[in-house]
Amino acid sequence: MTTPSAEPVLEEPVDARVVRTRRDVLAATIEELVEGGWDSVTHARVARRAGYSKATLYAHWPDRLALVRDAFASFGQMPHHESTGDLRGDLIGELTSFRSAMIEHRLDRALAVLAERAGPVPELTEVRNAFVEDGERPMRRALETVLTGPRLDAVTAMLCGAVVHPVLLHGHSPTDEELEVVVDVILRGLPETR
Amino acid sequence: MTTPSAEPVLEEPVDARVVRTRRDVLAATIEELVEGGWDSVTHARVARRAGYSKATLYAHWPDRLALVRDAFASFGQMPHHESTGDLRGDLIGELTSFRSAMIEHRLDRALAVLAERAGPVPELTEVRNAFVEDGERPMRRALETVLTGPRLDAVTAMLCGAVVHPVLLHGHSPTDEELEVVVDVILRGLPETR
Repeated sequence: MTTPSAEPVLEEPVDARVVRTRRDVLAATIEELVEGGWDSVTHARVARRAGYSKATLYAHWPDRLALVRDAFASFGQMPHHESTGDLRGDLIGELTSFRSAMIEHRLDRALAVLAERAGPVPELTEVRNAFVEDGERPMRRALETVLTGPRLDAVTAMLCGAVVHPVLLHGHSPTDEELEVVVDVILRGLPETR
Repeated sequence: MTTPSAEPVLEEPVDARVVRTRRDVLAATIEELVEGGWDSVTHARVARRAGYSKATLYAHWPDRLALVRDAFASFGQMPHHESTGDLRGDLIGELTSFRSAMIEHRLDRALAVLAERAGPVPELTEVRNAFVEDGERPMRRALETVLTGPRLDAVTAMLCGAVVHPVLLHGHSPTDEELEVVVDVILRGLPETR
């Protein structure tokens, strides 16, 4: 997104500055969100954390929802497993990436805030749905090679749920062994993959 | 917990009054929690909703955590499927009860608040763990007839996750057909149940 210039210049080009502002502010938004939750995301706190003025934030994001929506769109670029075409390996790889993101990228907190706040703040429903569908895509793509319809939805829910349930509701991640059990039970249990 | 008395009396016995106060206040606490989340649970709001004085609330529950802890202990008495000893029927029955409780008892909101607030409020971790373990017990008991160790944990996570993931992160319940797929894939995929 930066404009190449013939000569090195001391001042950043305007669009590079905009890109940097966006990146800093959205990262600070996610940090506030995962640390303190929805109520911690105020223009004042995010501005202070990112090192910009409140006026700059208001110029780009008129309200909290705009800020959080953009933050989740940028958060969405998560590391995923690189598909190899081997279904078992791809599913275990994708579950392992999901589990790492839960801890290393604080995806556990981000998902918990979305799950909790989409009740009282209905505008967040759309943000949550887009974010979750985006995250599920590689797994669904791997499963679509063998499944469709309600079977695809049910198996996607079992796979994602095998990470979401222990992380969000027990506060611990599934082990490597547990992730392998999950994938092997499913592959053995699906007539489509035998 | 009520004291039987020989004669009908106009005034309630003290312990019956205490039982009624507890029931009303804890129900109001859950209502505030599922409607507005953790921050809505204040002694003032719960007292107003339940129709008691703030002083009465403080006398029984010195702080918000005490109130929420007791409220979840009472919330815990959820309808469960009556076990028949048939594993497939018991698992489908238990998932169906779980799904109903999510909607009819607003368990979706209760779990989302616990998942979200246990991060910033570490004292809630224990409340969340006790509540979730309590809810999982009938399902684990059914599975324990065929599974142990990491296989038991992995399959419990898949089953619970198949309801938790769509409800909390997609905002919709799995269909009857999807719940049957979940149970049938698992039973077919486990060498222990073939």
